Amino acid sequence: MRVGTIGSGVIVDRMIDAMKQTKDVEVVAVYSRTKEKAEDYAQKHQIEKSYHDLEKMLQDITIDTIYVASPNSLHFEQSKRALQSGKHVICEKPFTPTLREAQELFDLADQNNRYIFEAITTIHLPNYQIVKEHLKDTGKVQLVQCNFSQFSSRYDKYKNHQVTNVFDPAFNGGALMDINVYCLHFVTGLFGKPDSIEYNANQGFNGIDTSGIAILRYPDKLAICVGAKDSSSPNQVFIQGDQGTIRVYGSSCGVCKHVQFLPLKGDMIGKEDQEITVELGIDQLPHMIYECQVFENIIQKDDKKEYQRLCEQTKLVVSLIEEAHSQLQG
Amino acid sequence: MRVGTIGSGVIVDRMIDAMKQTKDVEVVAVYSRTKEKAEDYAQKHQIEKSYHDLEKMLQDITIDTIYVASPNSLHFEQSKRALQSGKHVICEKPFTPTLREAQELFDLADQNNRYIFEAITTIHLPNYQIVKEHLKDTGKVQLVQCNFSQFSSRYDKYKNHQVTNVFDPAFNGGALMDINVYCLHFVTGLFGKPDSIEYNANQGFNGIDTSGIAILRYPDKLAICVGAKDSSSPNQVFIQGDQGTIRVYGSSCGVCKHVQFLPLKGDMIGKEDQEITVELGIDQLPHMIYECQVFENIIQKDDKKEYQRLCEQTKLVVSLIEEAHSQLQG
Repeated sequence: MRVGTIGSGVIVDRMIDAMKQTKDVEVVAVYSRTKEKAEDYAQKHQIEKSYHDLEKMLQDITIDTIYVASPNSLHFEQSKRALQSGKHVICEKPFTPTLREAQELFDLADQNNRYIFEAITTIHLPNYQIVKEHLKDTGKVQLVQCNFSQFSSRYDKYKNHQVTNVFDPAFNGGALMDINVYCLHFVTGLFGKPDSIEYNANQGFNGIDTSGIAILRYPDKLAICVGAKDSSSPNQVFIQGDQGTIRVYGSSCGVCKHVQFLPLKGDMIGKEDQEITVELGIDQLPHMIYECQVFENIIQKDDKKEYQRLCEQTKLVVSLIEEAHSQLQG
Repeated sequence: MRVGTIGSGVIVDRMIDAMKQTKDVEVVAVYSRTKEKAEDYAQKHQIEKSYHDLEKMLQDITIDTIYVASPNSLHFEQSKRALQSGKHVICEKPFTPTLREAQELFDLADQNNRYIFEAITTIHLPNYQIVKEHLKDTGKVQLVQCNFSQFSSRYDKYKNHQVTNVFDPAFNGGALMDINVYCLHFVTGLFGKPDSIEYNANQGFNGIDTSGIAILRYPDKLAICVGAKDSSSPNQVFIQGDQGTIRVYGSSCGVCKHVQFLPLKGDMIGKEDQEITVELGIDQLPHMIYECQVFENIIQKDDKKEYQRLCEQTKLVVSLIEEAHSQLQG
């Protein structure tokens, strides 16, 4: 992959760092809205070329892939333009706010013989694969709880009614789109499509969900996905089965730093209650490298089967977000 | 208090132990259904008298208080008989399955100038008071998550369709009644009556809820209460506010062994992510002693105000359980 990036947020810094460490992936150009910002950003990351005219970057034949990390509301249009220009696309999460738009992008990619990927870390992490492999150790899964609560540096501004993109409905901001998307990928990547989703949210003065809880109902289990930008937590995942529990912790389910198996526990009052844990996880590389490897492999090997699996996963999460978002008040 | 006990489960063992350690409280008699069981049980705990005829125990004038810890479905009738016999009553949680029955018991107690208490540990614990006092440190509370999941020693039998009381709807068994009641007390003791409660459950072959998730919606916050008898977890509580988080852990919210304050946390990727915690809790006595002290104090001081507060708290939780239970399928 020879990548051109759109955006200059912290997520782009991290993606460029990850791509630099990924075999056969190179960032060759960056785009930002003004000449000065684009040049500064290119220099900051020691990137060869900078663009402040997006169409020009899309016409650059030395670039084969565009990384779209603009505000959420621009994902669709910019991804579309990139595909129409014959580029592969890596589009930051949340992919699109509606399934219709997601399908349009996937169709457009097919028509142009190109690939489009959702840049979601969770499902590509080695420790997530380890969770998958050890799921059977928990017996029959009954309850899943997934919490990603990360206090936003823009929340204090928001409380003073200064609305930045991440708290602006017009930019598809909010806890569901920005952060609960990781939990939804985590849960559905393991258990597939739920029978239903129900979203309960704390909504701010402009209607944005500053935090919320999604319940996913499966025929034989329940999952809750908690996402918050207005408070914080140690961000753990618990998968409770009738033979034991898997705990994922450390950072968030976007990183899956640690994975543990906790043996089944009954009533421990009056007994020696030692926390017994079996470490399952490995020491991972910086977490964004793995998705880059997966995307590069699919392109290089023209792996349509794996690509199709990722498309279905993205469409599932997009459809859940669309349904959940429609349940917000007002 | 001079107490006569009904029941011989592990909860009665613990209550007798707690009462023995509580000033001005004495267990003077035990009741069980057969003469032999009653005598054995009295001997096991070195209690003076044993009864296998409940009415006889209720007529014993050396007893002023009856502790009702029979199967849940007998709580109402036995508490009623005890009050009618002029005794105070300590009735195990869940108090009654309906608000109508709870009100009838409270009215009957008033008419007889007696007290009736729900034997719930949570709200009487010193560490719970500490949570209350430090709630303001979290700023505006956004999300509360309370999990009490304790694998039942009878669940494997249940899976083989051998139904014991705790998994029998006819005995008011199930995760909501038996275990989520602690979470409901924890949350409502801090935040009062929610606007609504919604209960999602995993229901077994006979309809019993083996585990479930209740969402309590408040005007400006959301709380989830998770209770499970079909799986286990480390049983933590998180109170997430916009200035920090309180974590309660160790055993369950029926014990509140440890209380910690966690400072607000933003995006920590690439930063030194040390878990900073401030210990708030104290080393408590065995957890059931505190409720005994409270009940004894109310009786001794004829403290109608504190009694009324407890009645309202019990009625609130009973009404939530009644509403949640009515939402079960079938």
